[in-house]
Amino acid sequence: MAVLRAFESARAKGAEVPEVVCFEKQDDWGGLWKYTWRTGTDQYGEQVHCSMYRYLWSNGPKEALEFADYSFEEHFGRPIPSYPPRAVLHDYIMGRVEKSGVRPYVRFETPVRWVEYNDATEKFTVRVKDLKADRDYSEEFDYVIVSSGHFSTPNVPSFEGLESFPGRVMHAHDFRSADEFAGKDVLMIGSSYSAEDIGTQCIKYGAKSVTFSYRSNPMDYHWPDTFSEKPILTRVEGTIAHFADGTSKPVDAIVMCTGYLHHLPFLPDDLRLKTKNCLYPGDLWKGVVWEGNSKLFYVGMQDQYFTFNMFDAQAWYVRDIILGRLPIAPAEERAADIKSWMDREAASTGPAYDIDFQADYVRELIAATDYPFLDVDAVAALFKQWKHDKHDDIMGYRDNAYRSVLTGTMSPLHHTKWMEALDDSLEAFLAQPETA
Amino acid sequence: MAVLRAFESARAKGAEVPEVVCFEKQDDWGGLWKYTWRTGTDQYGEQVHCSMYRYLWSNGPKEALEFADYSFEEHFGRPIPSYPPRAVLHDYIMGRVEKSGVRPYVRFETPVRWVEYNDATEKFTVRVKDLKADRDYSEEFDYVIVSSGHFSTPNVPSFEGLESFPGRVMHAHDFRSADEFAGKDVLMIGSSYSAEDIGTQCIKYGAKSVTFSYRSNPMDYHWPDTFSEKPILTRVEGTIAHFADGTSKPVDAIVMCTGYLHHLPFLPDDLRLKTKNCLYPGDLWKGVVWEGNSKLFYVGMQDQYFTFNMFDAQAWYVRDIILGRLPIAPAEERAADIKSWMDREAASTGPAYDIDFQADYVRELIAATDYPFLDVDAVAALFKQWKHDKHDDIMGYRDNAYRSVLTGTMSPLHHTKWMEALDDSLEAFLAQPETA
Repeated sequence: MAVLRAFESARAKGAEVPEVVCFEKQDDWGGLWKYTWRTGTDQYGEQVHCSMYRYLWSNGPKEALEFADYSFEEHFGRPIPSYPPRAVLHDYIMGRVEKSGVRPYVRFETPVRWVEYNDATEKFTVRVKDLKADRDYSEEFDYVIVSSGHFSTPNVPSFEGLESFPGRVMHAHDFRSADEFAGKDVLMIGSSYSAEDIGTQCIKYGAKSVTFSYRSNPMDYHWPDTFSEKPILTRVEGTIAHFADGTSKPVDAIVMCTGYLHHLPFLPDDLRLKTKNCLYPGDLWKGVVWEGNSKLFYVGMQDQYFTFNMFDAQAWYVRDIILGRLPIAPAEERAADIKSWMDREAASTGPAYDIDFQADYVRELIAATDYPFLDVDAVAALFKQWKHDKHDDIMGYRDNAYRSVLTGTMSPLHHTKWMEALDDSLEAFLAQPETA
Repeated sequence: MAVLRAFESARAKGAEVPEVVCFEKQDDWGGLWKYTWRTGTDQYGEQVHCSMYRYLWSNGPKEALEFADYSFEEHFGRPIPSYPPRAVLHDYIMGRVEKSGVRPYVRFETPVRWVEYNDATEKFTVRVKDLKADRDYSEEFDYVIVSSGHFSTPNVPSFEGLESFPGRVMHAHDFRSADEFAGKDVLMIGSSYSAEDIGTQCIKYGAKSVTFSYRSNPMDYHWPDTFSEKPILTRVEGTIAHFADGTSKPVDAIVMCTGYLHHLPFLPDDLRLKTKNCLYPGDLWKGVVWEGNSKLFYVGMQDQYFTFNMFDAQAWYVRDIILGRLPIAPAEERAADIKSWMDREAASTGPAYDIDFQADYVRELIAATDYPFLDVDAVAALFKQWKHDKHDDIMGYRDNAYRSVLTGTMSPLHHTKWMEALDDSLEAFLAQPETA
């Protein structure tokens, strides 16, 4: 959607833009923010993209992901609290993209099956499947932009004894409703965003206990007594989970919060990004241009502090390369640039460092295009404040409010504390007194 | 495995057989009978093939699926009861195929991504992914035999209200352990094998109640009071399931026992079988030869009474076409033959008719090759007896014993009634007194 909007923005300003086709597997846009009750495969036998779950509230302040050209205030007609539930964020994203009029460029229910580059014609052949018509077809393109995300195909490790564990074993990708775990002892494998968010949510909706199992380090939070942290799971015997420190605990369900794979089965080896989740995957100049073929681009393949506006910054950058407004640097220069970013990431000292890293990256991209001004430093400061607030109160950090970087407006507090806000609907969230 | 064995059998008898390569997505053979705790996608992000669950016992007598050239008595060294659990059937299948020495022909962890036929070279290009090496490659073949099964990609309909149902919503494909449903009211959508088997198993392992929801007709069984049957689900409101007859019931979990799709995403439209689950899919002469290209074959794409030995019969038939031992009939003859089978299926009067239909089909194939003699009529009679026994006692039919069609030996009764046999391991099952 960022790329579509980038081209639309140039077109609106009088530029001649190429024909753009967006192939989308789902039946509507919204990407990960489009919720479905489905897990596994969908009605067509296609892998379900959705990793969203009910009762998901933003785990970062909305002020840190506000689009530079579309404030939350503009969308909702008034300031709203800082941590909205999924439906509210979805509404915001949709409002902006619907307004931009780019829907006609999208072919829904049309997953890409294979992309090939032809050296002779200098074009890509893209083979897709029209799921509704149940037919496949191919088209040629001068450029390909991979924007399929990387939080959809779960990374699922194995542990001894899982084959005879009597309770549910699942990945966070298939998590849909915490109600299922009310009264239960739940084991979460992992110590990042999925673990902390699904864990806190399970307790919020009545789980008896949550145990986190970490590979490297415990999380840096003050957990209430219903939580505990254990080193890595070594094996399961019946319902008993055994950990690397020799301790054990009976559990009713196991949720793998073990991250996602960069899974791009539609790309041949020479075009396919192979990376773990990190801030600067190799082989991508400016984080977007494929080193093996500079007519192939990747948008949003990084790990993210900055999300929506980083995607925008990348989309505007890619657009300007395609429009001939930005040059592709010579090979050595590209390699040196990539290396310097990767070296810098390797020297990371922690979250504050990483936030500054990504702020600098976004700033560099934005400076090169006509993307609207975004006070990247202010957003970085917000992220650091957010990290601090989470550290202070992992169960209550969503009760904080922040000031919009765009409008300068201080957000109101939500009418209900997050732990007591069991209704995650847009209507309930927006039923906010006018003055807060 | 049937096809590999068919070629190996010819080779052992002195025939010159072509090079055979089998591409297999899983890391070992066994197909559907290979159990895994995984659901959704596997460690490589590939769709999980397994539709098996713990505590699954054969739902048909083993005497009806005995291979014509390898009796259960031969494998286990003695007669065993008629309804073995999964591990025992898996052991039997594996024993035979390991003995045949065909493992070197299989490239494991190598799913097929795409198959294309080149009219000029008259060869197929098969593109595969070597998951372990994380690389793709292509090879050319004179013939392709699709043997990927059709009980792996679930057919998942939608119902109003599922997006806010608080309990688990799943397809039978993802069912792994009945323990999860102990004490719960479970709704099963569907009225075929998955519904009856998962439903009875849930009750066996402590579910409070099982409700079946049927689209056309209720099942023809005498259900105990813990079961009920309802017409089709019309909507869900919170935890309340509403049915077409105006009744409703609160349920804790919903299991879609709604069958599977013939999902063949690796085949282009002109090579791809499009069919529902039935006894005689169109476009397949002799049930195996693709009408659009007689160098392409499908094995096991039918709905099944006869299973292992029908796959064998088909494999031997396909092998003999490839070896030039059997002719491909002219187009009109093929079309007429397909039509007569399809007309006959359309006139079905019920299960007994269908059993005879498939018996005739298997008999015809076997007669054309050197596949060992199989008393198809005796097997058909067994299937009819089985249907009768199920009708008499849906919760106890697995306590019956039948006579082997191959060896004439009467099977012993199992040491424990099925409803009380909670341990489904091979060891527990085989801990059988010598004389029964």
